[in-house]
Amino acid sequence: MSRLTVTYSSECLKRNTTFEMVMPDSRQAGKPLQTLLLLHGFSCTALCFVPEYLAEQYQFAVVCPNGENSFWLDGLSTGHQFGTLVGEELPAYLRRTFGICNNAEDTHILGVSMGGFGALHTGLKYPQQFGMIGAMSPALIVHDVAAMQPGTENEVANYAYYRECFGEPSELLKSDNSPEVLADKLLAGGISLPEIYMCCGTEDGLLASNRAFHQFLTDRHIRHEYHESPGEHAIPFWDEYTGKIVRWMFDRR
Amino acid sequence: MSRLTVTYSSECLKRNTTFEMVMPDSRQAGKPLQTLLLLHGFSCTALCFVPEYLAEQYQFAVVCPNGENSFWLDGLSTGHQFGTLVGEELPAYLRRTFGICNNAEDTHILGVSMGGFGALHTGLKYPQQFGMIGAMSPALIVHDVAAMQPGTENEVANYAYYRECFGEPSELLKSDNSPEVLADKLLAGGISLPEIYMCCGTEDGLLASNRAFHQFLTDRHIRHEYHESPGEHAIPFWDEYTGKIVRWMFDRR
Amino acid sequence: MSRLTVTYSSECLKRNTTFEMVMPDSRQAGKPLQTLLLLHGFSCTALCFVPEYLAEQYQFAVVCPNGENSFWLDGLSTGHQFGTLVGEELPAYLRRTFGICNNAEDTHILGVSMGGFGALHTGLKYPQQFGMIGAMSPALIVHDVAAMQPGTENEVANYAYYRECFGEPSELLKSDNSPEVLADKLLAGGISLPEIYMCCGTEDGLLASNRAFHQFLTDRHIRHEYHESPGEHAIPFWDEYTGKIVRWMFDRR
Amino acid sequence: MSRLTVTYSSECLKRNTTFEMVMPDSRQAGKPLQTLLLLHGFSCTALCFVPEYLAEQYQFAVVCPNGENSFWLDGLSTGHQFGTLVGEELPAYLRRTFGICNNAEDTHILGVSMGGFGALHTGLKYPQQFGMIGAMSPALIVHDVAAMQPGTENEVANYAYYRECFGEPSELLKSDNSPEVLADKLLAGGISLPEIYMCCGTEDGLLASNRAFHQFLTDRHIRHEYHESPGEHAIPFWDEYTGKIVRWMFDRR
Repeated sequence: MSRLTVTYSSECLKRNTTFEMVMPDSRQAGKPLQTLLLLHGFSCTALCFVPEYLAEQYQFAVVCPNGENSFWLDGLSTGHQFGTLVGEELPAYLRRTFGICNNAEDTHILGVSMGGFGALHTGLKYPQQFGMIGAMSPALIVHDVAAMQPGTENEVANYAYYRECFGEPSELLKSDNSPEVLADKLLAGGISLPEIYMCCGTEDGLLASNRAFHQFLTDRHIRHEYHESPGEHAIPFWDEYTGKIVRWMFDRR
Repeated sequence: MSRLTVTYSSECLKRNTTFEMVMPDSRQAGKPLQTLLLLHGFSCTALCFVPEYLAEQYQFAVVCPNGENSFWLDGLSTGHQFGTLVGEELPAYLRRTFGICNNAEDTHILGVSMGGFGALHTGLKYPQQFGMIGAMSPALIVHDVAAMQPGTENEVANYAYYRECFGEPSELLKSDNSPEVLADKLLAGGISLPEIYMCCGTEDGLLASNRAFHQFLTDRHIRHEYHESPGEHAIPFWDEYTGKIVRWMFDRR
Repeated sequence: MSRLTVTYSSECLKRNTTFEMVMPDSRQAGKPLQTLLLLHGFSCTALCFVPEYLAEQYQFAVVCPNGENSFWLDGLSTGHQFGTLVGEELPAYLRRTFGICNNAEDTHILGVSMGGFGALHTGLKYPQQFGMIGAMSPALIVHDVAAMQPGTENEVANYAYYRECFGEPSELLKSDNSPEVLADKLLAGGISLPEIYMCCGTEDGLLASNRAFHQFLTDRHIRHEYHESPGEHAIPFWDEYTGKIVRWMFDRR
Repeated sequence: MSRLTVTYSSECLKRNTTFEMVMPDSRQAGKPLQTLLLLHGFSCTALCFVPEYLAEQYQFAVVCPNGENSFWLDGLSTGHQFGTLVGEELPAYLRRTFGICNNAEDTHILGVSMGGFGALHTGLKYPQQFGMIGAMSPALIVHDVAAMQPGTENEVANYAYYRECFGEPSELLKSDNSPEVLADKLLAGGISLPEIYMCCGTEDGLLASNRAFHQFLTDRHIRHEYHESPGEHAIPFWDEYTGKIVRWMFDRR
């Protein structure tokens, strides 16, 4: 197995950014290397938590960018372009440098918590880039953020933080920062959505918002997998589903 | 020479942060290891550009935090506390982990461009922590930011970026984010300022604002070194002054 | 949690060496930080496989040196001093740099396969340095190496490799590179041995040599833990015992 | 500029190995990226000391493997195959992973001291792989090693070390570990040698052996550049010639 730490000068961030990468040493001849973009959660850092033997078995690279606490969105400030980073700049970099990420069939996106939100958002914003979306316990907090008032804060962060990441809260429900808006645009345009796999633990505080998004997709007849099972917003639940989703993505014979 | 990459969970940033560190392998018995905090410029990353033989000769560690493009300030959003990171959290971490940064006599701060601004600001905000400040071509842009109007941008970044870093521009000239405000507070409180060494190239676009800050210090009879010489806002000028300032800080027999 | 990558100039290796380190960010006041040296196996690299929550819970640092394929011994060639590296140079470095590894009560050593051999060997060679030894599936191959003939090789490596690591095979059974020789010397000198915990899977090809060393210790009335359970020479077995051994070492109230 | 740290599982070393890499972010369309393999000296580590602006200007990647203290040769022991690593395994890895190192016209090799020896040796052993060889102050010590007696040592290392790296000293002058033997084989086979650039400081203790190799090449009418100028076996001399040799290699319009 190869493990790479790559730093490059990002136009989106106006500074250097570093991503972690894992890829098989031995490639099966004639079988192109697939790619999984892996998005971390709030307060976390780029780290490959996909078991390496799966990457070996199914022949894919895992690429783990650093999203800081950006919610993987393009924010208000110059250099706060994490959505464009994951959806455009990084795939182009990977294509140029490693010859991977050449098309949506070979390129999937998976995330957990804030990164689960990011996987849904980025996958729906760039359907030409990503074939499949995996969202574990996604932080689908758009409706909560939209309701925030200036000067307030919640247990995680203050209004200024959410405004910086999501744009003006009062405009968020009509903004491209909302996965629902993006899905409706794709439907309206007759564009195929990436395949979606969502899961959420029944003890997770985000369960209600996950069910709501599941209902949103169901109402629109958008085909998707949705799974609930006992578990909290915690590593054991994600360990269980990481393997399931990776197999769902890559075990396609 | 030892080279360390250290990642820890930052309360100030609400996420992991990584700093680079260089320190002598061989320590002279009975001579405590001194510390130099080194602050990078806009669009750059933590990197020790102090020649290692100087750290060996004068027996100091160089600690290079990552300030992203924060101007080394506490910004508006939760987790955007780069000033507190450098002035409080990081010194406490270094004290606890390495037994260094124990007092201002042993701890100095140096930066270039945005980092030169950060060195001046952090040094003046935490005079009990830092004995000496080195500021190479500091980006003393507080007056420019204070004059910005919502919706505008300059060649570097937009209004939202500057507001996020510096706080409301209209209040900046009375804010602790202004080094001038901090210096006046120290004078008013009868508190000794850290020693200051500034330099700026005569071909540097920041020359006028450097001269203005030099005049500000002079007007208040604040002792400081101020040097101009031919040079641009570029590496050759900084290479020249890095050695000069390191010797000014540490060659104290 | 802090994660450190540390490179320093090693006298033992006559070149730079890098170790990985994990330590709790938050330390309980008045409780000194303990240390676990963790030795990897053949063909592997420094990697902390101890779960971080255990290091947090019991307040210890995990230090993972790179032993290459040295069997953690002092070999014949200049710069091939991996035994002295782990037993002397690295503890001194950690004491000087981090204020840890100050005595055997606070410093333990654990390894797997080749690293299990290294933990036994280094622990028995430096009993003043290490309080407890954990050896998972240790590669106790001294008797096999001693029987090798010049010009031969086995499925792992050639005679020149084993001679380089272990010294002249024909002299090995009387050499300090044999853990049995070291144990007998300690007994003869009336010196207390570190506490020992060994384990081996019943499907492991090294089972016979593990049983033989267990018998060796038993014959000499050397107190030790010895555990067999179903398992191969593989990660699932080591995952199970890593937690057990860490608790055996650090859960001492 | 991109900076990569890459770890992969090496067949040659029977363990993981790590190399450092620097490459331009922006590539000129239609201009393939060239490669410079950079070999470090004794007691050193992989580090790119080629100025990055030159890699940008001439559009080449710099790849810096870790040769430990191996003299970049295939030694006696299993896993001590540093010559094959640099000459075969690493180029194949780079071709497979990055699409570079595709032919000798695009792939050059440069080293300093022990790495200068390695550049000459590897370049002459794999002329189909490397178009140009740069050797700064190469440690051309083959004749010294050949004269060593068992049980002796010099100021650098002992006989066992040299035997491990170079093979039996008594056979060295007829061995493929001698650059002279390799050059004569190429001449005898009518195979073109890579272009060679050597330099040595007039205060360098290796001057005599460098002159001898220069004479060896001259006697055989092998075209090469040979430069002497004031300087020691030290960084200032190498800084001067790194730029000269890089331009000699890549400035070919």
